[in-house]
Amino acid sequence: MGLLLIGEKITVASKSISHAIKEREKRVIQDLAASQVEAGANMVDLSIGPATKDGPATMEWLVKAVQEVVDVPLSLDTTNPQAMEAGLKVHKGQALINSTTAEKDRLEGMVPLAKKYDANIIGLTMTEAGIPRDANERAAIAVDILAALAEHDVPFERLYLDPLILSIGVMQNQACEVMTALALFKQLNDPPIKTLAALSNVFNGCPNHVKGVLGRTYLAMLMTIGVDAIIMNPLEKEIMDTIKTVQVYKNEVLYAHSYLD
Amino acid sequence: MGLLLIGEKITVASKSISHAIKEREKRVIQDLAASQVEAGANMVDLSIGPATKDGPATMEWLVKAVQEVVDVPLSLDTTNPQAMEAGLKVHKGQALINSTTAEKDRLEGMVPLAKKYDANIIGLTMTEAGIPRDANERAAIAVDILAALAEHDVPFERLYLDPLILSIGVMQNQACEVMTALALFKQLNDPPIKTLAALSNVFNGCPNHVKGVLGRTYLAMLMTIGVDAIIMNPLEKEIMDTIKTVQVYKNEVLYAHSYLD
Repeated sequence: MGLLLIGEKITVASKSISHAIKEREKRVIQDLAASQVEAGANMVDLSIGPATKDGPATMEWLVKAVQEVVDVPLSLDTTNPQAMEAGLKVHKGQALINSTTAEKDRLEGMVPLAKKYDANIIGLTMTEAGIPRDANERAAIAVDILAALAEHDVPFERLYLDPLILSIGVMQNQACEVMTALALFKQLNDPPIKTLAALSNVFNGCPNHVKGVLGRTYLAMLMTIGVDAIIMNPLEKEIMDTIKTVQVYKNEVLYAHSYLD
Repeated sequence: MGLLLIGEKITVASKSISHAIKEREKRVIQDLAASQVEAGANMVDLSIGPATKDGPATMEWLVKAVQEVVDVPLSLDTTNPQAMEAGLKVHKGQALINSTTAEKDRLEGMVPLAKKYDANIIGLTMTEAGIPRDANERAAIAVDILAALAEHDVPFERLYLDPLILSIGVMQNQACEVMTALALFKQLNDPPIKTLAALSNVFNGCPNHVKGVLGRTYLAMLMTIGVDAIIMNPLEKEIMDTIKTVQVYKNEVLYAHSYLD
């Protein structure tokens, strides 16, 4: 199975996207979905946050609008279980539930939906206690997520464990812990549980002149350790070039002098 | 101990440098040595190849010229043992003998010099039989190099094992084997034998528009696995930026928004 590349651009964290969603500007959303897929994404994330107001209608509208123009599965990103379910109901194909933490109410809200809608699910290794201190704490939380999946009869192969990447500018020592956690996650089960990295978190809050090198370098490091899915900006050529290059070095993609074109 | 960065620019493979060496244009060589050190190299390589004609005088002149202007140790790169010894004789500080293979006459020519001049030595894992097929063959050759060192009473901590990086455009599958070999080399001894990567070999013969991304990406991958020394072009900002960034992610260098300046 190849690398899952999830385009992150449709998010309410962006002012213009937030506006387009609110105003139901279908064309803006559809164009951004199509351009991400054209650039190489094989899944598109729809991030509407807590969506406390009008969540279900918003997610339903988004899923339908995007699947009119692209035929890839979608990653539905909201902490609101009603909004999640509204999206899953209308989604064609196998959706991805993004992002369930090990917080009790989140597990209870989201894991049953993975079962009911045959969806994949991202398990973010954090709890009510906040940010995990190190790789071992992440692995312990991962075990709790696995237990919740088992309890609700969701097969482990539906899970992507997310080690919670944090900004290098805020918690530098966590960059190492995330890499160690990715290696630990692989040892939790046989066949190994899949893993996912939300790359852009690593340069969150950093100045623009370092974002490029921070992103592409961490990406190469994470892919060296091994990761099955990446949430990233496929419109950033530097990022896509790095992915193709690592795949060449791993002998997964054939090298040709024109391999970047 | 920090990462050893060996500047590769003084080499007869470059026409202008070859000319400068032949004509004894001291200033050209000295400027290039100084600029590499200023850019971050903590060792400078002097590569004169087989140097069948005038080898000893050439290496002696080079070592003296370079050590007049920089106070870092030098890596002496020639297959000619007489030229090597001439360089070691006049070198101030602890030199690095680059590159001894496991070919019988090379081991016999170079390892005694490492003992006699208290020099460090690079062991390139290749033999008379040519390019090793895979990581295991590289590890087996490494063991032969260790045996030769032991025989001549050269301590293992003086050795840098070089897994022989080849061009991605010629032997793509070897890129993986090199990475596996680096991991295997660490298991040969406790404390682990140091390792070295000659980075630029990986994009040798590739077109210019892919050299940058090929170099910086492989560099991040090799450093993720762990490497103690890199022969590279310190004048390439992309390469130096990648090194600093990996060191930040490994928590070896403190992050600041200005960390690249």
